[in-house]
Amino acid sequence: MKVVITADELKKGIAELNRPLGFVPTMGFLHEGHLSLVRKARAENRTVAVSIFANPTQFAPDEDLENYPRDIDRDLELLSGAGTDLVWIPTVGVMYPENFQTWVEVEELTKVLEGSYRPTHFRGVTTVVAKLFNAVRPDRVYFGQKDAQQAAVVSQMVRDLSYPLEMVVCPIVREPDGLAMSSRNTYLSAPERQAALCLSSGLFKARDAFLGGERSAQKLRDIVRQEIENEPLAELQYVSCADPETLAELKNEVENCLISLAVFVGKTRLIDNIILGK
Amino acid sequence: MKVVITADELKKGIAELNRPLGFVPTMGFLHEGHLSLVRKARAENRTVAVSIFANPTQFAPDEDLENYPRDIDRDLELLSGAGTDLVWIPTVGVMYPENFQTWVEVEELTKVLEGSYRPTHFRGVTTVVAKLFNAVRPDRVYFGQKDAQQAAVVSQMVRDLSYPLEMVVCPIVREPDGLAMSSRNTYLSAPERQAALCLSSGLFKARDAFLGGERSAQKLRDIVRQEIENEPLAELQYVSCADPETLAELKNEVENCLISLAVFVGKTRLIDNIILGK
Repeated sequence: MKVVITADELKKGIAELNRPLGFVPTMGFLHEGHLSLVRKARAENRTVAVSIFANPTQFAPDEDLENYPRDIDRDLELLSGAGTDLVWIPTVGVMYPENFQTWVEVEELTKVLEGSYRPTHFRGVTTVVAKLFNAVRPDRVYFGQKDAQQAAVVSQMVRDLSYPLEMVVCPIVREPDGLAMSSRNTYLSAPERQAALCLSSGLFKARDAFLGGERSAQKLRDIVRQEIENEPLAELQYVSCADPETLAELKNEVENCLISLAVFVGKTRLIDNIILGK
Repeated sequence: MKVVITADELKKGIAELNRPLGFVPTMGFLHEGHLSLVRKARAENRTVAVSIFANPTQFAPDEDLENYPRDIDRDLELLSGAGTDLVWIPTVGVMYPENFQTWVEVEELTKVLEGSYRPTHFRGVTTVVAKLFNAVRPDRVYFGQKDAQQAAVVSQMVRDLSYPLEMVVCPIVREPDGLAMSSRNTYLSAPERQAALCLSSGLFKARDAFLGGERSAQKLRDIVRQEIENEPLAELQYVSCADPETLAELKNEVENCLISLAVFVGKTRLIDNIILGK
């Protein structure tokens, strides 16, 4: 497994990789969710590249960039074990040189849900993802369904900006008790870790209701909301029942939907989601 | 020479081209300026691709998109003669599918000069150029110095968005009497064509003054302005004496500079420029 830092090293490294090339962008501190993407890329391509970069432009000043967990040695060991061919670990200076002034923005899809609470987040995501795609020129890219809106926004960008690559969105990987895997779970104290189960249990109750015939968007949202409100350590930021493609909030009866939510458990902001009816 | 329309045709066509691949994006109605780019690309690369697309998003509603001159048959003949391997002629529907909502924007460099008079122009340029770069994945790209700010803006985008390609900016090609070649020259009546010489003659007088020792930015601008004001059919929109890289307007003494201007000759808006001291 080759590890590169600079753009020149990357260019040489990429040129040596057989095609098709699968690519998994990450912010590091890898867990089973990331590794499921690497394994899928491994199975579908001749070579696999992974980037590790905690992208400052997708964090707001009051968010957790400074404290975002890091463990490069462990990450490299896990990536090597999963069959990665090349790892790119750019520095902030490589990615955002002095006088940087170019941004990639997806307009409509970024106005709702996460975008409404984190107004500069997706501009940072799409800009860095465009840079990664440009530098790596992959044939397939792998994203997790955990960040449902991110997957929708990047898919829109791929289509709108004519990237000649296949976007693969992989299922959420959960802990045995249901908690969606996230690098941010490491922030949770033991009681918070227990309380955080309300996200997945709320979603599972909504799923069970849906499977039992419930089709009211409002009732599905209410089931999730009730579960969060029953947990004293949790504070709901939003719960949404939306069209899985347009992310438009649904009213009345639903045929299929993306139920998603953001919850503060202590100071830690967690998100989770489930797609129903597809 | 292969001619393709759709993204799929393009992808197949590009995959067959040997590397390095030189790429020349155009809006068609080709003249000797475009062909100088194709010949340079031909000389420096194993294969050459050209796009022809009058990009609607870089025209404001009151600009000349509807009337922009076209002659595809002649363009293809000229491109074939210049040794082009592949021509991409996307439709508006291929480039801007329904629900298109992603934009690439260079911030600082687009606020001055052309950008201040055409506020949505460069967003359209950088978005379509990013799409063309993504779809073609060229190794070298060729732009004309005629659109000086465009060359600076695209260079900034290439650097900021990590495109692994070399940006080549080629000299302005002029008619024997000095008029910079432009597809828009075809709009000019015979008297306007004669009047249009004031752009290049003003720039040449500024160059002669610079070579004679004149270093005052204001005096260099005044020399150009005077030449335009002496021409009854011409109306000056702006004349600038700016830093060639940052495009910041210069005051006092200049060491090197980009003198650029925009002039209406009748209803036709023409631009021209010259770099001094480099």
